Amino acid sequence: MSPIKQTILVTGGCGYIGSHTVLRLLESGYKVIVVDNLSNSSFEALRRVHELYTRVAPKDESPASLTTEQLIPFYQVDVLDRSSLIKVFASHPEISAVIHFAGRKAVGESSHIPLDYYNVNISGTVNLLQVMDEFHVRKIVFSSSATVYGDPPVIPIPETSPIVASMSPYGRTKVFLEHIIKDLCTASVVKHQRYVKECEAANKSVEHNYEWSAMLLRYFNPAGAHPSGIMGEDPQGIPNNLMPFLAQVAVGNLEKLSVFGDDYPTRDGTCIRDYLHVLDLAQGHVAALAKMDTNHTAGLFGCKAYNLGTGTGCTVLDMVRAFNRAVGRELPYVITGRRAGDVPNLTADPSLANKELEWKAEKSLDEMCTDLWRWQRTHPNGYSPAQNQ
Amino acid sequence: MSPIKQTILVTGGCGYIGSHTVLRLLESGYKVIVVDNLSNSSFEALRRVHELYTRVAPKDESPASLTTEQLIPFYQVDVLDRSSLIKVFASHPEISAVIHFAGRKAVGESSHIPLDYYNVNISGTVNLLQVMDEFHVRKIVFSSSATVYGDPPVIPIPETSPIVASMSPYGRTKVFLEHIIKDLCTASVVKHQRYVKECEAANKSVEHNYEWSAMLLRYFNPAGAHPSGIMGEDPQGIPNNLMPFLAQVAVGNLEKLSVFGDDYPTRDGTCIRDYLHVLDLAQGHVAALAKMDTNHTAGLFGCKAYNLGTGTGCTVLDMVRAFNRAVGRELPYVITGRRAGDVPNLTADPSLANKELEWKAEKSLDEMCTDLWRWQRTHPNGYSPAQNQ
Repeated sequence: MSPIKQTILVTGGCGYIGSHTVLRLLESGYKVIVVDNLSNSSFEALRRVHELYTRVAPKDESPASLTTEQLIPFYQVDVLDRSSLIKVFASHPEISAVIHFAGRKAVGESSHIPLDYYNVNISGTVNLLQVMDEFHVRKIVFSSSATVYGDPPVIPIPETSPIVASMSPYGRTKVFLEHIIKDLCTASVVKHQRYVKECEAANKSVEHNYEWSAMLLRYFNPAGAHPSGIMGEDPQGIPNNLMPFLAQVAVGNLEKLSVFGDDYPTRDGTCIRDYLHVLDLAQGHVAALAKMDTNHTAGLFGCKAYNLGTGTGCTVLDMVRAFNRAVGRELPYVITGRRAGDVPNLTADPSLANKELEWKAEKSLDEMCTDLWRWQRTHPNGYSPAQNQ
Repeated sequence: MSPIKQTILVTGGCGYIGSHTVLRLLESGYKVIVVDNLSNSSFEALRRVHELYTRVAPKDESPASLTTEQLIPFYQVDVLDRSSLIKVFASHPEISAVIHFAGRKAVGESSHIPLDYYNVNISGTVNLLQVMDEFHVRKIVFSSSATVYGDPPVIPIPETSPIVASMSPYGRTKVFLEHIIKDLCTASVVKHQRYVKECEAANKSVEHNYEWSAMLLRYFNPAGAHPSGIMGEDPQGIPNNLMPFLAQVAVGNLEKLSVFGDDYPTRDGTCIRDYLHVLDLAQGHVAALAKMDTNHTAGLFGCKAYNLGTGTGCTVLDMVRAFNRAVGRELPYVITGRRAGDVPNLTADPSLANKELEWKAEKSLDEMCTDLWRWQRTHPNGYSPAQNQ
């Protein structure tokens, strides 16, 4: 008989990082339930997860005989919708932790419609946390971002670098949510201590019922796609980030790349970022979940932040050259002015995650580029072939 | 014929500062609509406002012939309840601005139930702002707090002092909301510029339709009560703040005051705060509304923060002595340990509000104490005489 699998609720599980993480969770022996409002993602991503999992699943599971929703229970629910979230948790008392990807993520857009960002990201997350607390599900892995460091004083950036609120409304939602989750964890320790006293007074045994654990994963720049070529990033409209933009240039959907500024204090004047393969990032979530379990067993709770990056910085022009190698030709680009809110260098010091999560980004820049290109050239319009033309 | 009065929606209008501000608005010629969930306040406060306004109203208004709700339309609505808020705005297209008091405010409690604070204060305010935007009501006066300054480097504190996120979940809600409101105002300018271009292209006249204006009023320590003795602070349970606590000791509801720490680097070792009379604070809101109107007429929009304080710091022991003078006897106190999150000194530099809002705190410490004592000795249990015993 197989051991009982842990069940993880993944919000935003149809998105780019979400779908790769759902697959990695299944491959690691977890059960997964997905909540996604599909506002910027497609259910097709889960069908691809199903297909990919079928290729590697243990024989006795035969996921090929299941529908996608039998393998991965799916709820088209917005995290702002409390009553629907309550129904999901009530239907699945087996949920032991949540990986929370759902949220808006376009830096530039966040300056134009900040209330939408604060509503979805902050009110949505507070709502989710309240429902989790109500159902005694008190483990969360949260998608934070390197943007919380603002323009950091030290490169590579350690987790102890000050977190600031100065870059964009998007960035501020991440900073504020880190504080909110930390406050929740701190409060839960006090609540637990009160409960322990009550137990002692009543001569009852103490269980870890009230403590929250949280992993704040500060992503650097995720890139690449599943090496199969059937799962990858599918941004709506014009991509905000370098790699999906370049990929759209390569398939001819966009004319040329704009490089925002070549007068930064870097080796070639363009911004330096720390690109990591989305599969490495997905594995980081599995590592964080495992670490929370180890911590619980050791009686350790609370909130901890980890950088997920490679530790190696690449300039924009480095990335263009690497992607050119994958595509086999030179893609056109033009240097334009700096973009508001960009900082010169965001390179991770990943040593804390390397050590404590036993996690390390392993895939190379060239793998990111060839995997991205394999996905994009076969899926020039992502999961929506009908939108081709 | 009287000039048409502006209508102001006041959230939390039944609370301590809210009710005094509602009265001051009526006295200044505004119409007022109140939204309050009554979770920590009483409708009785508005009856008192009605009574006090009747004493001073112009003869042709005869508010004595009205019910309280005819004078001040009242909605028992939570700011988190979007559909009810929408009904209020839809029923009152005459609303021209909002003064937003509603929110949770107990510093200590916020550390125990942080999610409640983030939910009510942040999600509630974002909700309100979204509904306001939908109804084109884009002027807000927001209750911020001196706590946004953390432990400030310079005393008295200018508005340019850095705002920090380090003290309590309550304090963080104020800091985060200042950022959220500022981001909203900034985004609205961009939206306006786009609209101006559209108007020019269509040869249409430009109206100021899209711009937000916000006044972030950073309260120092409000104290005192209406000089009539019939309206004042009515905190639920044990008061969190010095003055209402002292007042409860004076009427015998509490045994003695705890002074949290006498080893701060101040003249007598106790914390220094800048106490201002609640009537002065109320007048600050009227001044801020007037300034927003002047700004609009001049084509000025956006977000501005003002300190509302006297500029004079008092230690806890100064306040105890002042209140003893009002009561006519020495109230018992005991020195206990420092309280987490308290900083040594929060004294305002109010010169910006003095100049730009033409506002100045005018009432003395002794007036605060005698007014508070007049209210408390006649209302030992606030608005709820039934709870007496």
